[in-house]
Amino acid sequence: MPDKTANVAMEERLQEAAARIEPVLKELLPPKADEYLSDAVWYHLRSGGKRIRPAICLLTCEQLGEAPSRALYFAAAVEILHNMLLIHDDVEDGDTVRRDRETVWVRYGQANAINVGDFMLGVASEALLRSPVSNRQRVELARAFAAAYTDTCRGQAFDLNTRGKVDLTVEHYLEMVTLKTGRYMALGMLGGAIVADADAVVLECVGRLGECMGAAFQIRDDMIDLTVGKGRGGQTGNDIREGKSSILYAHAINAADEDTKRELAGIMAKPREETTDFEVERVGALYEELGSLEFARAEAERLVQKAFDIIEQVPLNDTRFFRQVIGYMVSRSK
Amino acid sequence: MPDKTANVAMEERLQEAAARIEPVLKELLPPKADEYLSDAVWYHLRSGGKRIRPAICLLTCEQLGEAPSRALYFAAAVEILHNMLLIHDDVEDGDTVRRDRETVWVRYGQANAINVGDFMLGVASEALLRSPVSNRQRVELARAFAAAYTDTCRGQAFDLNTRGKVDLTVEHYLEMVTLKTGRYMALGMLGGAIVADADAVVLECVGRLGECMGAAFQIRDDMIDLTVGKGRGGQTGNDIREGKSSILYAHAINAADEDTKRELAGIMAKPREETTDFEVERVGALYEELGSLEFARAEAERLVQKAFDIIEQVPLNDTRFFRQVIGYMVSRSK
Repeated sequence: MPDKTANVAMEERLQEAAARIEPVLKELLPPKADEYLSDAVWYHLRSGGKRIRPAICLLTCEQLGEAPSRALYFAAAVEILHNMLLIHDDVEDGDTVRRDRETVWVRYGQANAINVGDFMLGVASEALLRSPVSNRQRVELARAFAAAYTDTCRGQAFDLNTRGKVDLTVEHYLEMVTLKTGRYMALGMLGGAIVADADAVVLECVGRLGECMGAAFQIRDDMIDLTVGKGRGGQTGNDIREGKSSILYAHAINAADEDTKRELAGIMAKPREETTDFEVERVGALYEELGSLEFARAEAERLVQKAFDIIEQVPLNDTRFFRQVIGYMVSRSK
Repeated sequence: MPDKTANVAMEERLQEAAARIEPVLKELLPPKADEYLSDAVWYHLRSGGKRIRPAICLLTCEQLGEAPSRALYFAAAVEILHNMLLIHDDVEDGDTVRRDRETVWVRYGQANAINVGDFMLGVASEALLRSPVSNRQRVELARAFAAAYTDTCRGQAFDLNTRGKVDLTVEHYLEMVTLKTGRYMALGMLGGAIVADADAVVLECVGRLGECMGAAFQIRDDMIDLTVGKGRGGQTGNDIREGKSSILYAHAINAADEDTKRELAGIMAKPREETTDFEVERVGALYEELGSLEFARAEAERLVQKAFDIIEQVPLNDTRFFRQVIGYMVSRSK
């Protein structure tokens, strides 16, 4: 049973760390500096988001014995990366609403949304090179950043091109979310560890830890889409409308008999605007019936447990705190 | 009068240098490695392009007294950047044809085109960090790369949002093309100079040199659009159809009387598909009449002369060769 007082204290520490990012974001992306860019950047950055990735970057650095202030530029770079990926994702998916507001491309046009995302990535790349660390560490930070970015695109390529496929497996799904969500969830922690000059073994553990957390987080996110919706005016079942490869679909398509498989894939393959509410409900019922929701819950648990095991191998000052953070992250919505 | 034999020798040296990039591109982007990504990457990379930016990177490094092989990763990164920018540009502009073939987004869809471009940028960022130089130089290379990328997006933002505007000036135009075309034209040369461990004064000169060349190159490109077309099935006047802020438009809109100004801006502001061949011809005639073509020619000449002057300040082994390269670059099409 989680200790509520400790959880409140943990959330406060996360919020404190997150608050330290805001002035750095304003320094890196001055709100009025770039005509035709700054407005769109801040329209998106102000729309919310808990700055949880940069907060964890700072806390990892601190937990490994280094002043978190030295990781501020990297933490901000990770937050900018996260947001530019959301902006491009929304164009790619044709999503019109995020965090209950119009997406950037709806408001500023597709061309500007693509370019604004590109611009933000450039700013993030410049920012991390300003970290007050050795040039060797800067090169390591830049490598970790570029590698995570490249892998995220690999995961996205998989996501974009496997929608409504009948041969999707749970293994494929896990590979995809590790690439698409895990790598850059891990990135903040990895950067914090690099700034703290952690050794190769610790870096490797931190990387795996982030990947487990990212995958667990994504699985919970898949489940949330079916229950409370993902900040899109409360509409549920968007992943079904878009035919997204969720863990629920990956499980169900393999658990179903031939007829059900055909029905399920048929609904997923339909263009979003042709998918009816009735069909979305039907898929939700199938997920329940085939045990896919139960399976997803168990998979998330398994990954959280794996993350807990990895934590024991990392010389953190306070492993209990990190266990709480993991519990918190995988239980909240995006 | 240019020496024809020397020009042939110069072109051969450029081609030799360019040929050295191909195996590096294949190493960085193995043609079959990434499902849903590699095909689109190579569909675009194989479509042509003379690899002139990386060639100049290698030659700059050599001319400053360092083995050009040490600049290969950076040169390849610049070529990958150039191509990902073209892929995103085509989505943003809605261009369907490039180098006389379907653009990437037409063939693979918009979502994949955006993601493939993002992926290529990540690969380029990883590549340049592999340069066999000191960590200090790697950080400098990464800084130059990110700064050029960010500025290119700033120029693109300006380009996307000022089409068909009546208050465009030649100064605005030059600022825009310096950002959009100059910075990353300069980037290859700058990277070659960083690998050669050139001092700050030389780096500054090389940066300005590249910017002049980039602006001159873009001006010639604006003129080519009106005369022979830009590899889009020979169709001329695409910049007019798209309402692009060319130097011709920037000059004409300021040289025209009020009635002509209104007519010109009206045609430029029209959506591409509504612009008639007659209107394109009319704008071409106006450019002639108002002296805009003559003005563009003179501006390109002025920039080339400025580039020649800068060259004299850089300790290159062979300044004559570099003068030839400049002459060659600004006289060829994209």
